[in-house]
Amino acid sequence: MIELQVDLADRSYPIVIGAGLLKDPPTMRQAVGDKRALVITNQTVADLYLAQVQTALDSTIVGECVIGDGEEFKNIETFEKVIGTMLGHRLDRGSLVIALGGGVVGDLGGFAAACYQRGIDFVQLPTTLLAQVDSSVGGKTAVNHALGKNMIGAFHQPIAVIIDTDTLKTLPDRELQAGIAEVIKYGLIGDHEFFAWLEVNIEKLMARDPQALEFAIERSCRNKAMVVSKDEREGGLRAILNLGHTFGHAIEKCLGYGQWLHGEAVGAGMVSAARMSAILGYLTEDDVTRTLDLVRRAGLPSGLPDSVSDEQMLEAMRVDKKNAQGRITLVLLDAIGTARITRDYPDHALLEALSRSRER
Amino acid sequence: MIELQVDLADRSYPIVIGAGLLKDPPTMRQAVGDKRALVITNQTVADLYLAQVQTALDSTIVGECVIGDGEEFKNIETFEKVIGTMLGHRLDRGSLVIALGGGVVGDLGGFAAACYQRGIDFVQLPTTLLAQVDSSVGGKTAVNHALGKNMIGAFHQPIAVIIDTDTLKTLPDRELQAGIAEVIKYGLIGDHEFFAWLEVNIEKLMARDPQALEFAIERSCRNKAMVVSKDEREGGLRAILNLGHTFGHAIEKCLGYGQWLHGEAVGAGMVSAARMSAILGYLTEDDVTRTLDLVRRAGLPSGLPDSVSDEQMLEAMRVDKKNAQGRITLVLLDAIGTARITRDYPDHALLEALSRSRER
Repeated sequence: MIELQVDLADRSYPIVIGAGLLKDPPTMRQAVGDKRALVITNQTVADLYLAQVQTALDSTIVGECVIGDGEEFKNIETFEKVIGTMLGHRLDRGSLVIALGGGVVGDLGGFAAACYQRGIDFVQLPTTLLAQVDSSVGGKTAVNHALGKNMIGAFHQPIAVIIDTDTLKTLPDRELQAGIAEVIKYGLIGDHEFFAWLEVNIEKLMARDPQALEFAIERSCRNKAMVVSKDEREGGLRAILNLGHTFGHAIEKCLGYGQWLHGEAVGAGMVSAARMSAILGYLTEDDVTRTLDLVRRAGLPSGLPDSVSDEQMLEAMRVDKKNAQGRITLVLLDAIGTARITRDYPDHALLEALSRSRER
Repeated sequence: MIELQVDLADRSYPIVIGAGLLKDPPTMRQAVGDKRALVITNQTVADLYLAQVQTALDSTIVGECVIGDGEEFKNIETFEKVIGTMLGHRLDRGSLVIALGGGVVGDLGGFAAACYQRGIDFVQLPTTLLAQVDSSVGGKTAVNHALGKNMIGAFHQPIAVIIDTDTLKTLPDRELQAGIAEVIKYGLIGDHEFFAWLEVNIEKLMARDPQALEFAIERSCRNKAMVVSKDEREGGLRAILNLGHTFGHAIEKCLGYGQWLHGEAVGAGMVSAARMSAILGYLTEDDVTRTLDLVRRAGLPSGLPDSVSDEQMLEAMRVDKKNAQGRITLVLLDAIGTARITRDYPDHALLEALSRSRER
């Protein structure tokens, strides 16, 4: 068992990583405490893990709220339903929300905790690789709007994140791969040693080697915790965590949420960002190739979907939280392990990057 | 022109009070700055004041979002519509929301600003007495849920509050009276001198004497700013601002939102709280009579509505954000000008208070 700390003054919290933690009462009780708690989850995850959580925490659980499984349920309608369930169970400001599931459950459950009676505590129990290495850490909570992903949300830190690596045993291959996209991201934006490790060990991750997964999760969480500690509310640095995401969000939106997984869109988006970085002369073609190769070896798409035009991509990219002064903000690479955030680029470079991202 | 400060470290902001401020470009521009701004308002207020605001701020206004007039529109559906308008105008994190109107516009507009892309700045331009002395100051934003009032919200401070007392000239009598309920509250919970001033000057307020109104607004805002500065997130002290509100929210909910105005329900609720305080021996019968008389002289209801039973009241009071450990939290009076927050009372005292609140 490994314990890291996200360092945020009075909002600091632990990330505990290990096998079998969901069925380990001492770990669970220490993180969750003895507050009256409601579990938010989806049916798939409930069937697999809800009983473990209920057994470990026993009487502190007053009920559960089961939402639909998929990005298309991360909306205001589901949010209102969850709040209704919380009210039905008479949760008060001293109660707790437990988000048991992947990114959708964590983002929506966290946002419900952020808004319920203007804010109550919550704990993240991420069960997908993507949630474990990315969305459960850092306090970003949100739901989607028809006009843009994650446009309605709050910064609301959990009081604890418990990562049970055993949950990855039941994760579909496609979702595992989507999670690896975010793992690769940490190598690209700030950890070239980790990127090199991934080049050697990617097949082990794909084969779910427990030691490799635990190492990759820990290293990813350390990278994320460091960035979040320096810039909780995305005043600057934190935006580098969005490498590939401006392209990726646009892909998801244009295809309709739920067609490509978030991580799949980010995989293709990181390749687009690398291509644009090379067009601008920041990144060598050799490093573009390394990026492309690793993304492909992870089983992720490395180009834009044929059904989406460049114009549709641009239109969608113009609605992004990081944009300012009417310019699309991009995270680009100076090298593997070094990223920059910029709005200062010629528009033709972005168009060319989109065009090259259609090459197979 | 009077300027107060709400003292909250890096979230401090000014409250500017005076006649004709909405059409005073220097005041407006200083408070609002030059950010791209969207005005949220309702049709009634738009017809009266939107042109003034547009003229004073000129090109910084990129559009407006007009919502329905009334508490029944303070819901998730309207909230989603407002977010859609914000997205349609391509607001980014450097943009601004201006809430021009009463409590519904301020609470909902503030909540939209709190959630839009996880939080952008907003300015309050309150046009009702209730919003000027209460809801626009202190950063509480929210919408209602079918199961409870203000159950979905955020603490999100405005960057400025501009109170143009001229807007009260067009306020319907019933809404003026509803605002006076909150003014009386400040006297009851912490300012016995102000209560005594109100006993002398209540008819002047009712007659909209400009000097009397300006004094009452300033004094109310000073009282509120002091409480909020000490306890921004309602960890303790701030709950005293809810005198009469637990009873009042229950009345509003049982009758259906929009039947009684919030201030009317608070007027009756303060009398119920005073009666209960006397039943418990905290408050003299003489002070109950002073409270009852002032509420009546303000044209406010002083008893519970006949159509709502004691059981319905209790059931509704059990869903309140201040409750804890399954107990209804109440604000009670030790004297005029001194309040206490308590969950420690015999249940029969609450029942008796409800019963006496039906006396005419």
